[in-house]
Amino acid sequence: MLDNLDWRYAVKKMDPTKPVSDEKIAGLLKAIRFAPTSSGLQPFKVFVITNTETREKIAAAAMNQAQILEGSHVLVFAGFDNYTEERIEEVVAQHAEERPGTREALDAYYDMLKSIYLPRDAHVNAEHAARQAYIALGFALAAAAELEIDTTPMEGFDPAAVDAILGLPEQGLKSLSILAVGTRAEEGDWLVNMKKVRKPDEALFVRID
Amino acid sequence: MLDNLDWRYAVKKMDPTKPVSDEKIAGLLKAIRFAPTSSGLQPFKVFVITNTETREKIAAAAMNQAQILEGSHVLVFAGFDNYTEERIEEVVAQHAEERPGTREALDAYYDMLKSIYLPRDAHVNAEHAARQAYIALGFALAAAAELEIDTTPMEGFDPAAVDAILGLPEQGLKSLSILAVGTRAEEGDWLVNMKKVRKPDEALFVRID
Repeated sequence: MLDNLDWRYAVKKMDPTKPVSDEKIAGLLKAIRFAPTSSGLQPFKVFVITNTETREKIAAAAMNQAQILEGSHVLVFAGFDNYTEERIEEVVAQHAEERPGTREALDAYYDMLKSIYLPRDAHVNAEHAARQAYIALGFALAAAAELEIDTTPMEGFDPAAVDAILGLPEQGLKSLSILAVGTRAEEGDWLVNMKKVRKPDEALFVRID
Repeated sequence: MLDNLDWRYAVKKMDPTKPVSDEKIAGLLKAIRFAPTSSGLQPFKVFVITNTETREKIAAAAMNQAQILEGSHVLVFAGFDNYTEERIEEVVAQHAEERPGTREALDAYYDMLKSIYLPRDAHVNAEHAARQAYIALGFALAAAAELEIDTTPMEGFDPAAVDAILGLPEQGLKSLSILAVGTRAEEGDWLVNMKKVRKPDEALFVRID
Protein backbone atom coordinates (compact mmCIF):
# COMPACT_ATOMS: atom_id res chain seq x y z
CA MET A 1 0.00 0.00 0.00
CA LEU A 2 2.84 2.43 0.83
CA ASP A 3 3.92 2.72 -2.81
CA ASN A 4 0.39 3.62 -3.85
CA LEU A 5 -0.52 6.27 -1.25
CA ASP A 6 -0.22 8.99 -3.86
CA TRP A 7 -1.86 6.88 -6.60
CA ARG A 8 -5.12 6.60 -4.65
CA TYR A 9 -7.57 9.49 -4.39
CA ALA A 10 -11.31 9.92 -4.00
CA VAL A 11 -12.28 9.25 -7.60
CA LYS A 12 -14.89 11.68 -8.93
CA LYS A 13 -15.78 9.87 -12.15
CA MET A 14 -15.74 6.12 -12.79
CA ASP A 15 -15.86 4.18 -16.06
CA PRO A 16 -18.91 1.85 -16.08
CA THR A 17 -17.31 -0.34 -18.78
CA LYS A 18 -14.47 -1.37 -16.42
CA PRO A 19 -15.88 -3.40 -13.52
CA VAL A 20 -13.56 -4.53 -10.72
CA SER A 21 -12.79 -8.28 -10.86
CA ASP A 22 -14.17 -10.76 -8.32
CA GLU A 23 -10.59 -11.61 -7.38
CA LYS A 24 -9.76 -8.03 -6.45
CA ILE A 25 -13.04 -7.66 -4.52
CA ALA A 26 -12.11 -10.80 -2.58
CA GLY A 27 -8.81 -9.15 -1.58
CA LEU A 28 -10.62 -6.03 -0.45
CA LEU A 29 -13.06 -8.02 1.67
CA LYS A 30 -10.23 -10.07 3.16
CA ALA A 31 -8.60 -6.87 4.41
CA ILE A 32 -11.89 -5.78 5.98
CA ARG A 33 -12.29 -9.16 7.65
CA PHE A 34 -8.73 -9.10 9.03
CA ALA A 35 -8.91 -5.52 10.30
CA PRO A 36 -8.30 -5.44 14.05
CA THR A 37 -11.11 -4.21 16.30
CA SER A 38 -11.43 -3.51 20.00
CA SER A 39 -11.53 -6.84 21.92
CA GLY A 40 -12.05 -8.59 18.58
CA LEU A 41 -15.73 -7.67 18.51
CA GLN A 42 -15.93 -6.73 14.79
CA PRO A 43 -19.10 -4.76 15.57
CA PHE A 44 -20.27 -4.10 12.02
CA LYS A 45 -21.45 -5.61 8.75
CA VAL A 46 -20.50 -4.58 5.24
CA PHE A 47 -23.13 -4.69 2.49
CA VAL A 48 -21.55 -5.54 -0.86
CA ILE A 49 -23.92 -4.35 -3.54
CA THR A 50 -23.85 -4.82 -7.30
CA ASN A 51 -27.64 -4.83 -7.79
CA THR A 52 -28.56 -1.85 -9.97
CA GLU A 53 -31.96 -1.14 -8.44
CA THR A 54 -30.52 -1.05 -4.91
CA ARG A 55 -27.66 1.18 -6.09
CA GLU A 56 -30.16 3.53 -7.73
CA LYS A 57 -32.03 3.88 -4.44
CA ILE A 58 -28.78 4.49 -2.55
CA ALA A 59 -27.64 7.07 -5.12
CA ALA A 60 -30.94 8.91 -4.66
CA ALA A 61 -30.25 9.02 -0.89
CA ALA A 62 -26.67 10.21 -1.52
CA MET A 63 -27.10 13.39 -3.52
CA ASN A 64 -26.94 11.32 -6.73
CA GLN A 65 -23.18 10.94 -6.49
CA ALA A 66 -22.45 9.38 -9.87
CA GLN A 67 -19.76 6.91 -8.74
CA ILE A 68 -22.44 4.81 -6.98
CA LEU A 69 -23.82 3.82 -10.40
CA GLU A 70 -20.68 4.24 -12.54
CA GLY A 71 -18.63 1.88 -10.35
CA SER A 72 -19.21 -1.87 -10.27
CA HIS A 73 -19.64 -2.34 -6.51
CA VAL A 74 -20.92 -0.28 -3.63
CA LEU A 75 -19.90 -1.14 -0.07
CA VAL A 76 -22.03 0.16 2.80
CA PHE A 77 -20.36 -0.02 6.21
CA ALA A 78 -23.01 -0.46 8.90
CA GLY A 79 -22.17 -0.43 12.61
CA PHE A 80 -23.90 -2.16 15.49
CA ASP A 81 -26.52 0.13 17.05
CA ASN A 82 -25.58 -1.27 20.46
CA TYR A 83 -23.63 -4.05 22.18
CA THR A 84 -25.75 -6.87 23.54
CA GLU A 85 -25.13 -10.00 25.62
CA GLU A 86 -25.87 -12.10 22.53
CA ARG A 87 -23.47 -10.21 20.27
CA ILE A 88 -20.62 -10.49 22.78
CA GLU A 89 -21.33 -14.15 23.53
CA GLU A 90 -21.10 -14.96 19.83
CA VAL A 91 -17.52 -13.67 19.82
CA VAL A 92 -16.64 -15.56 23.01
CA ALA A 93 -18.09 -18.79 21.62
CA GLN A 94 -16.11 -18.54 18.39
CA HIS A 95 -12.86 -17.78 20.20
CA ALA A 96 -13.41 -20.65 22.66
CA GLU A 97 -13.99 -23.03 19.76
CA GLU A 98 -11.00 -21.93 17.68
CA ARG A 99 -8.60 -21.60 20.61
CA PRO A 100 -9.10 -24.70 22.72
CA GLY A 101 -8.37 -24.33 26.43
CA THR A 102 -9.07 -20.61 26.63
CA ARG A 103 -12.72 -20.64 27.74
CA GLU A 104 -12.05 -19.64 31.36
CA ALA A 105 -9.80 -16.71 30.49
CA LEU A 106 -12.22 -15.61 27.76
CA ASP A 107 -15.15 -15.63 30.16
CA ALA A 108 -13.23 -13.57 32.72
CA TYR A 109 -12.22 -10.98 30.12
CA TYR A 110 -15.56 -10.67 28.34
CA ASP A 111 -17.56 -10.69 31.59
CA MET A 112 -15.52 -7.63 32.57
CA LEU A 113 -16.26 -6.10 29.17
CA LYS A 114 -19.98 -6.82 29.48
CA SER A 115 -20.06 -5.13 32.89
CA ILE A 116 -18.84 -1.95 31.15
CA TYR A 117 -20.63 -2.11 27.79
CA LEU A 118 -24.07 -3.51 28.60
CA PRO A 119 -25.20 -0.82 31.10
CA ARG A 120 -23.82 1.95 28.86
CA ASP A 121 -26.02 4.20 26.76
CA ALA A 122 -26.76 2.70 23.32
CA HIS A 123 -25.44 5.85 21.66
CA VAL A 124 -22.03 5.51 23.34
CA ASN A 125 -21.81 1.87 22.27
CA ALA A 126 -22.86 2.72 18.71
CA GLU A 127 -20.14 5.37 18.52
CA HIS A 128 -17.60 2.87 19.79
CA ALA A 129 -18.75 0.38 17.17
CA ALA A 130 -18.56 3.07 14.47
CA ARG A 131 -14.92 3.75 15.28
CA GLN A 132 -14.08 0.06 14.87
CA ALA A 133 -15.88 0.05 11.52
CA TYR A 134 -13.71 2.98 10.47
CA ILE A 135 -10.54 0.95 11.18
CA ALA A 136 -11.97 -1.59 8.72
CA LEU A 137 -12.79 1.24 6.29
CA GLY A 138 -9.14 2.29 6.57
CA PHE A 139 -8.04 -1.29 5.84
CA ALA A 140 -10.38 -1.37 2.82
CA LEU A 141 -8.96 1.89 1.45
CA ALA A 142 -5.37 0.75 2.03
CA ALA A 143 -6.01 -2.64 0.41
CA ALA A 144 -7.74 -0.96 -2.54
CA ALA A 145 -4.66 1.22 -3.05
CA GLU A 146 -2.40 -1.84 -2.99
CA LEU A 147 -4.63 -3.70 -5.47
CA GLU A 148 -5.08 -0.56 -7.61
CA ILE A 149 -8.81 -0.63 -7.17
CA ASP A 150 -10.37 2.83 -7.34
CA THR A 151 -12.66 3.95 -4.57
CA THR A 152 -14.67 6.92 -3.39
CA PRO A 153 -15.48 7.02 0.32
CA MET A 154 -18.66 9.00 1.04
CA GLU A 155 -20.34 10.39 4.13
CA GLY A 156 -22.61 12.72 2.16
CA PHE A 157 -25.83 10.72 2.31
CA ASP A 158 -29.04 10.53 4.32
CA PRO A 159 -28.30 7.76 6.88
CA ALA A 160 -31.97 7.21 7.74
CA ALA A 161 -32.83 6.72 4.06
CA VAL A 162 -29.95 4.26 3.51
CA ASP A 163 -30.91 2.42 6.71
CA ALA A 164 -34.45 2.03 5.34
CA ILE A 165 -33.26 0.84 1.89
CA LEU A 166 -31.12 -1.91 3.46
CA GLY A 167 -33.50 -2.76 6.33
CA LEU A 168 -30.81 -1.92 8.89
CA PRO A 169 -32.94 -1.05 11.96
CA GLU A 170 -34.41 -4.59 12.00
CA GLN A 171 -30.83 -5.92 11.99
CA GLY A 172 -29.66 -3.62 14.78
CA LEU A 173 -27.39 -1.72 12.41
CA LYS A 174 -26.78 1.89 11.36
CA SER A 175 -25.23 3.01 8.07
CA LEU A 176 -21.91 4.81 8.56
CA SER A 177 -20.17 5.25 5.25
CA ILE A 178 -20.47 4.30 1.60
CA LEU A 179 -17.52 3.16 -0.47
CA ALA A 180 -18.04 3.27 -4.23
CA VAL A 181 -15.67 0.82 -5.96
CA GLY A 182 -14.76 0.91 -9.64
CA THR A 183 -12.24 2.20 -12.16
CA ARG A 184 -11.36 5.86 -12.67
CA ALA A 185 -12.47 7.56 -15.90
CA GLU A 186 -9.46 9.84 -16.16
CA GLU A 187 -10.71 12.02 -18.99
CA GLY A 188 -13.77 13.21 -17.08
CA ASP A 189 -12.43 13.53 -13.53
CA TRP A 190 -11.59 17.05 -12.37
CA LEU A 191 -9.64 15.72 -9.38
CA VAL A 192 -7.36 13.17 -11.06
CA ASN A 193 -4.60 15.59 -12.01
CA MET A 194 -4.81 17.82 -8.95
CA LYS A 195 -1.93 17.82 -6.49
CA LYS A 196 -2.72 15.72 -3.41
CA VAL A 197 -2.98 18.08 -0.44
CA ARG A 198 -2.13 16.95 3.07
CA LYS A 199 -1.20 18.91 6.18
CA PRO A 200 2.55 19.19 6.70
CA ASP A 201 4.18 16.89 9.26
CA GLU A 202 4.49 19.70 11.80
CA ALA A 203 0.71 20.28 11.79
CA LEU A 204 -0.08 16.59 12.31
CA PHE A 205 2.64 15.15 14.50
CA VAL A 206 3.90 16.19 17.93
CA ARG A 207 7.16 14.55 18.92
CA ILE A 208 8.02 14.00 22.55
CA ASP A 209 11.59 12.64 22.68
CA MET B 1 -0.09 -5.18 3.47
CA LEU B 2 -2.31 -7.99 2.12
CA ASP B 3 0.46 -10.59 2.43
CA ASN B 4 0.98 -9.67 6.08
CA LEU B 5 -2.62 -9.61 7.37
CA ASP B 6 -2.04 -12.85 9.23
CA TRP B 7 1.48 -11.86 10.33
CA ARG B 8 0.22 -8.89 12.30
CA TYR B 9 -1.52 -9.25 15.67
CA ALA B 10 -1.89 -7.20 18.82
CA VAL B 11 1.49 -7.99 20.34
CA LYS B 12 1.33 -8.76 24.06
CA LYS B 13 5.06 -8.64 24.83
CA MET B 14 7.69 -6.52 23.15
CA ASP B 15 11.50 -6.78 23.25
CA PRO B 16 13.00 -3.53 24.58
CA THR B 17 16.38 -4.34 22.99
CA LYS B 18 14.89 -4.10 19.47
CA PRO B 19 13.74 -0.56 18.78
CA VAL B 20 11.99 0.26 15.49
CA SER B 21 14.20 2.21 13.07
CA ASP B 22 13.60 5.87 12.22
CA GLU B 23 13.12 4.86 8.59
CA LYS B 24 10.29 2.49 9.42
CA ILE B 25 8.65 5.04 11.72
CA ALA B 26 8.81 7.56 8.84
CA GLY B 27 6.89 5.07 6.66
CA LEU B 28 4.27 4.62 9.36
CA LEU B 29 3.79 8.36 9.76
CA LYS B 30 3.59 8.84 6.00
CA ALA B 31 0.66 6.41 5.88
CA ILE B 32 -1.08 8.35 8.65
CA ARG B 33 -0.50 11.63 6.83
CA PHE B 34 -1.85 10.23 3.55
CA ALA B 35 -4.93 8.61 5.08
CA PRO B 36 -8.07 10.06 3.53
CA THR B 37 -10.46 11.97 5.78
CA SER B 38 -13.88 13.53 5.30
CA SER B 39 -13.55 16.72 3.20
CA GLY B 40 -9.78 16.52 3.72
CA LEU B 41 -10.07 17.97 7.22
CA GLN B 42 -7.54 15.63 8.93
CA PRO B 43 -9.14 16.52 12.27
CA PHE B 44 -6.54 15.01 14.59
CA LYS B 45 -2.95 15.06 15.77
CA VAL B 46 -0.71 12.11 16.52
CA PHE B 47 1.74 12.32 19.41
CA VAL B 48 4.88 10.33 18.68
CA ILE B 49 6.53 9.57 21.99
CA THR B 50 9.87 7.99 22.81
CA ASN B 51 10.47 9.92 26.05
CA THR B 52 10.60 7.41 28.91
CA GLU B 53 9.11 9.64 31.59
CA THR B 54 6.10 10.50 29.43
CA ARG B 55 5.64 6.84 28.53
CA GLU B 56 5.79 5.90 32.21
CA LYS B 57 2.99 8.35 32.96
CA ILE B 58 0.92 7.03 30.05
CA ALA B 59 1.49 3.43 31.13
CA ALA B 60 0.24 4.32 34.60
CA ALA B 61 -2.95 5.73 33.01
CA ALA B 62 -3.29 2.60 30.83
CA MET B 63 -3.45 -0.23 33.34
CA ASN B 64 0.35 -0.55 33.12
CA GLN B 65 0.17 -2.34 29.78
CA ALA B 66 3.79 -3.40 29.40
CA GLN B 67 4.15 -2.74 25.66
CA ILE B 68 4.04 1.02 26.30
CA LEU B 69 7.48 0.77 27.93
CA GLU B 70 8.84 -2.35 26.19
CA GLY B 71 8.28 -0.89 22.72
CA SER B 72 10.39 1.95 21.31
CA HIS B 73 7.60 4.36 20.35
CA VAL B 74 4.12 5.17 21.57
CA LEU B 75 1.65 6.90 19.28
CA VAL B 76 -1.33 8.66 20.83
CA PHE B 77 -4.11 9.51 18.38
CA ALA B 78 -5.93 12.66 19.54
CA GLY B 79 -9.03 13.98 17.78
CA PHE B 80 -10.32 17.53 17.50
CA ASP B 81 -12.77 18.28 20.33
CA ASN B 82 -14.82 20.36 17.85
CA TYR B 83 -14.74 21.92 14.40
CA THR B 84 -14.13 25.65 14.35
CA GLU B 85 -14.07 28.39 11.70
CA GLU B 86 -10.30 28.64 12.16
CA ARG B 87 -9.66 24.92 11.78
CA ILE B 88 -11.70 24.72 8.58
CA GLU B 89 -10.18 27.91 7.14
CA GLU B 90 -6.69 26.47 7.64
CA VAL B 91 -7.63 23.58 5.34
CA VAL B 92 -9.20 25.90 2.75
CA ALA B 93 -6.13 28.16 2.75
CA GLN B 94 -3.73 25.26 2.20
CA HIS B 95 -5.83 23.82 -0.62
CA ALA B 96 -6.16 27.22 -2.31
CA GLU B 97 -2.40 27.68 -2.14
CA GLU B 98 -1.48 24.24 -3.45
CA ARG B 99 -4.20 24.10 -6.12
CA PRO B 100 -4.13 27.47 -7.85
CA GLY B 101 -7.43 28.65 -9.33
CA THR B 102 -9.67 26.68 -7.00
CA ARG B 103 -10.38 29.34 -4.35
CA GLU B 104 -13.94 30.09 -5.46
CA ALA B 105 -15.02 26.45 -5.61
CA LEU B 106 -13.29 25.76 -2.28
CA ASP B 107 -15.09 28.64 -0.60
CA ALA B 108 -18.46 27.44 -1.90
CA TYR B 109 -17.85 23.89 -0.68
CA TYR B 110 -16.41 24.71 2.72
CA ASP B 111 -18.97 27.46 3.40
CA MET B 112 -21.61 24.76 2.94
CA LEU B 113 -19.66 22.51 5.30
CA LYS B 114 -19.32 25.26 7.91
CA SER B 115 -23.07 25.88 7.80
CA ILE B 116 -23.52 22.24 8.88
CA TYR B 117 -20.60 21.72 11.27
CA LEU B 118 -20.27 24.99 13.15
CA PRO B 119 -23.79 25.10 14.67
CA ARG B 120 -23.62 21.40 15.55
CA ASP B 121 -23.06 20.12 19.07
CA ALA B 122 -19.35 19.82 19.95
CA HIS B 123 -19.87 16.19 20.92
CA VAL B 124 -21.22 15.30 17.46
CA ASN B 125 -18.28 17.03 15.79
CA ALA B 126 -15.78 15.32 18.12
CA GLU B 127 -17.28 11.94 17.26
CA HIS B 128 -17.04 12.75 13.56
CA ALA B 129 -13.40 13.75 14.04
CA ALA B 130 -12.74 10.54 16.01
CA ARG B 131 -13.98 8.41 13.12
CA GLN B 132 -11.59 10.16 10.74
CA ALA B 133 -8.74 9.53 13.18
CA TYR B 134 -9.67 5.85 13.15
CA ILE B 135 -9.26 5.72 9.35
CA ALA B 136 -5.72 7.00 9.99
CA LEU B 137 -5.29 4.40 12.76
CA GLY B 138 -6.32 1.77 10.21
CA PHE B 139 -3.73 3.14 7.76
CA ALA B 140 -1.08 3.04 10.51
CA LEU B 141 -1.89 -0.59 11.35
CA ALA B 142 -1.91 -1.60 7.68
CA ALA B 143 1.40 0.18 7.00
CA ALA B 144 2.94 -1.38 10.10
CA ALA B 145 1.97 -4.83 8.81
CA GLU B 146 3.54 -4.06 5.43
CA LEU B 147 6.75 -2.80 7.07
CA GLU B 148 6.74 -5.66 9.60
CA ILE B 149 6.60 -3.28 12.51
CA ASP B 150 4.85 -4.74 15.54
CA THR B 151 2.06 -2.80 17.16
CA THR B 152 -0.50 -3.03 19.92
CA PRO B 153 -3.56 -0.79 19.56
CA MET B 154 -5.12 0.08 22.93
CA GLU B 155 -8.34 1.65 24.10
CA GLY B 156 -7.98 0.45 27.68
CA PHE B 157 -6.78 3.67 29.28
CA ASP B 158 -8.14 6.62 31.22
CA PRO B 159 -8.69 9.28 28.53
CA ALA B 160 -8.90 12.16 31.00
CA ALA B 161 -5.56 11.16 32.54
CA VAL B 162 -3.85 10.85 29.13
CA ASP B 163 -5.39 14.18 28.07
CA ALA B 164 -3.85 15.79 31.18
CA ILE B 165 -0.40 14.18 30.63
CA LEU B 166 -0.22 15.55 27.06
CA GLY B 167 -1.97 18.87 27.74
CA LEU B 168 -4.68 18.06 25.22
CA PRO B 169 -7.59 20.22 26.49
CA GLU B 170 -5.54 23.39 25.94
CA GLN B 171 -4.95 22.22 22.36
CA GLY B 172 -8.62 21.42 21.71
CA LEU B 173 -7.86 17.71 21.48
CA LYS B 174 -9.10 14.47 23.06
CA SER B 175 -7.12 11.22 23.30
CA LEU B 176 -8.73 8.39 21.33
CA SER B 177 -6.35 5.48 21.11
CA ILE B 178 -2.80 4.47 21.92
CA LEU B 179 -0.60 2.51 19.56
CA ALA B 180 2.44 0.87 21.14
CA VAL B 181 5.13 0.29 18.50
CA GLY B 182 8.05 -2.10 18.86
CA THR B 183 9.25 -5.63 18.16
CA ARG B 184 7.53 -8.79 19.38
CA ALA B 185 9.26 -10.86 22.08
CA GLU B 186 8.02 -14.20 20.81
CA GLU B 187 9.18 -16.30 23.74
CA GLY B 188 7.07 -14.41 26.27
CA ASP B 189 3.92 -13.63 24.29
CA TRP B 190 0.91 -15.85 25.00
CA LEU B 191 -0.87 -14.62 21.88
CA VAL B 192 1.84 -15.04 19.25
CA ASN B 193 1.09 -18.67 18.44
CA MET B 194 -2.68 -18.53 18.84
CA LYS B 195 -4.84 -18.96 15.76
CA LYS B 196 -6.12 -15.63 14.48
CA VAL B 197 -9.88 -15.55 14.99
CA ARG B 198 -12.17 -13.57 12.72
CA LYS B 199 -15.88 -13.86 12.02
CA PRO B 200 -16.66 -15.93 8.92
CA ASP B 201 -17.54 -14.08 5.71
CA GLU B 202 -21.25 -14.85 6.09
CA ALA B 203 -21.36 -13.09 9.48
CA LEU B 204 -19.64 -9.95 8.16
CA PHE B 205 -20.76 -9.48 4.58
CA VAL B 206 -24.22 -9.19 3.06
CA ARG B 207 -24.27 -9.50 -0.72
CA ILE B 208 -26.98 -7.83 -2.76
CA ASP B 209 -26.50 -8.92 -6.39
